[in-house]
Amino acid sequence: MEGVYVAGVGMTAFGKHPDRTAADLAAEAILGALDDAGVGVMEIEAAWVGHVYQGMAMGQRALGAAGLSGLPITNVENACSSGSTAIFEAAMALRAGAYDLVLAVGVEHLSSKFRGALQPDESDIEAQIGLTMPSVYAMRARRHFEQYGTTPRQLAAIAAKNKFNASLNPLAQFKKPVSIDEVLAGPLIAEPLHRDECAPVSDGAAAVVLVSEKKRRQLGGSRAVRLVASALRSGRMEVGLPDMTQEDLTWRTALAAYEQAGLGPEDVQMAEVHDCFSIAETTRIEGLHLFPFGEYPRAVERGEASLNGRLPVNTSGGLLGKGHPLGATGVAQVIEIVKQLRGEAGDRQVANLKVGLAHCRGGKARGVEGTACTVNILTL
Amino acid sequence: MEGVYVAGVGMTAFGKHPDRTAADLAAEAILGALDDAGVGVMEIEAAWVGHVYQGMAMGQRALGAAGLSGLPITNVENACSSGSTAIFEAAMALRAGAYDLVLAVGVEHLSSKFRGALQPDESDIEAQIGLTMPSVYAMRARRHFEQYGTTPRQLAAIAAKNKFNASLNPLAQFKKPVSIDEVLAGPLIAEPLHRDECAPVSDGAAAVVLVSEKKRRQLGGSRAVRLVASALRSGRMEVGLPDMTQEDLTWRTALAAYEQAGLGPEDVQMAEVHDCFSIAETTRIEGLHLFPFGEYPRAVERGEASLNGRLPVNTSGGLLGKGHPLGATGVAQVIEIVKQLRGEAGDRQVANLKVGLAHCRGGKARGVEGTACTVNILTL
Repeated sequence: MEGVYVAGVGMTAFGKHPDRTAADLAAEAILGALDDAGVGVMEIEAAWVGHVYQGMAMGQRALGAAGLSGLPITNVENACSSGSTAIFEAAMALRAGAYDLVLAVGVEHLSSKFRGALQPDESDIEAQIGLTMPSVYAMRARRHFEQYGTTPRQLAAIAAKNKFNASLNPLAQFKKPVSIDEVLAGPLIAEPLHRDECAPVSDGAAAVVLVSEKKRRQLGGSRAVRLVASALRSGRMEVGLPDMTQEDLTWRTALAAYEQAGLGPEDVQMAEVHDCFSIAETTRIEGLHLFPFGEYPRAVERGEASLNGRLPVNTSGGLLGKGHPLGATGVAQVIEIVKQLRGEAGDRQVANLKVGLAHCRGGKARGVEGTACTVNILTL
Repeated sequence: MEGVYVAGVGMTAFGKHPDRTAADLAAEAILGALDDAGVGVMEIEAAWVGHVYQGMAMGQRALGAAGLSGLPITNVENACSSGSTAIFEAAMALRAGAYDLVLAVGVEHLSSKFRGALQPDESDIEAQIGLTMPSVYAMRARRHFEQYGTTPRQLAAIAAKNKFNASLNPLAQFKKPVSIDEVLAGPLIAEPLHRDECAPVSDGAAAVVLVSEKKRRQLGGSRAVRLVASALRSGRMEVGLPDMTQEDLTWRTALAAYEQAGLGPEDVQMAEVHDCFSIAETTRIEGLHLFPFGEYPRAVERGEASLNGRLPVNTSGGLLGKGHPLGATGVAQVIEIVKQLRGEAGDRQVANLKVGLAHCRGGKARGVEGTACTVNILTL
């Protein structure tokens, strides 16, 4: 992919923000990203704002709250991939040569939209018969158990890993490490998934400044990180035949991204993936071909995906630990990779990184074609 | 702007479709556009789907209903400019060289979302104090009366013109011409605006196939119409000082589009503009500098914007006559221009056209930065 760079990143703390609005959160993230890039608000030429439930013209309200009016703003929605789709669209505009400095933002104030868990839409027939997200992922976990001999303890190790990483991330929703035994002692949401294995309801915002090669040089961007691939694909959730443990959509999207980047799974040194449930981290990582099918949960148990493991996964804490404000998630994943590549990840810093991958996906549980998946790859 | 062409167009009848879904309507429009372009569903490389109230992953559902899964799909929302923003994003991707054949779709099933008029959001402070869209536009009309001596009869002439044009459009919501006297005899929605001067609640979908120069040649595209400009800007509604009759945002967007196209207002031979109210057509046309400020309503009374006038406006019937399924509107405007340029507009055909302009805008009434505006210019 032509030269597209992340010149600055900014995000709010993820968690419950009852006293703040989505626009206010987005403005904090935007101003943080501009400050990080060393540019002023008037230098933004266009913006893409990803969210799911924030209503009409959220992007315009967000940029307005950051003090900016007038520029081209597009609101994008692709379920839990909304923020990463904003990055995809922003990168496309840079590739088109239409701009040199643009903004991709993700934001969600979920706690003001839902009491407790997300309510499925009335027209969602799958949800009405019980095919809500926890039950769909529970089925996938059971199938993984059956097929590969995976154990509840191994899945719980994923949640414990991510909660531990989150405890080292000052912006994470969960600050306290949780042991594997504590995960297993928690209440079951949908057997075999315990509460700590399910992503929480979160509020938050994240923003990145993306620039062209020309602008990177103008900014003297020694800290700029290159976005070498940004791929988007659609499909349906793989809960039917032939194998609900294998993510066809994740692989198709990854294949497009690997091709754009001229890299393969063997080059990836860290990954932020869409761990809405512990089993989801498994099917994503295996779908990205970063671990062989069936082997990821036991590899996590052995510490291979830990901060000092051979492939650290969700060093930010992931959705399980950092939180999951839907629209913000995909942008925050890219921010974590940028921070790690720059060596600015503090207590959770991984050594000697050159290549990181962010994977996001979301959508309806099954049946209709309602799923979107993105893979962004960044390099030093 | 680099070579981007409209190779095919399709849309549903606009109106009330109680027995159909948004996905079903969108699929009809998509398949119509593909058929018109002479390409198969598998030739689509990516799609952008504009809508406002259709919920998560609408685009994925729409493409699924058209028989297609797997490709990159982005849902975009920019209030009433959502469909035209889908065109903006699709054109950007072609300019980036990422694809050669893509789809821009707009869809809305509004009658299933609102009973009667649109309900403002609970958090919409402007709406709570009475600043709903009809009252905002009524104020703008009164100011136009005061400032330029415009009369209620002249504004009513705009509605009568558009309802007449709609009567010649088989896909329009309103099939019966309405005289100026009938408009004036109708109930007042917000004085001085009568019911026929306000856009209705509508369901419908519209789709265009956009192609690169290379693909146009491959298709032997003698019927392809060139998109020479696609501009998007944001801002706030001009209801305050210095002059609420002048559309700063419309002019800024038009300026960007005129520059892209290498054309000026004097080159425009027909226009589809966002006539959500009769006064809105006035402020749009004057904001585009197609008529001098203050002069448009009396020019309409003299027939200058009629099908045989010097600058036909809203030949499709506009929002007032054709209907206004929010997300679909911006795409349908472009479709009308394509049909007119191709000489396929039937009983409402305008002779000897080479350049047409589509203008769309929408968003919050005022106060916050919640407005989006697009201008697309097409040439033979």
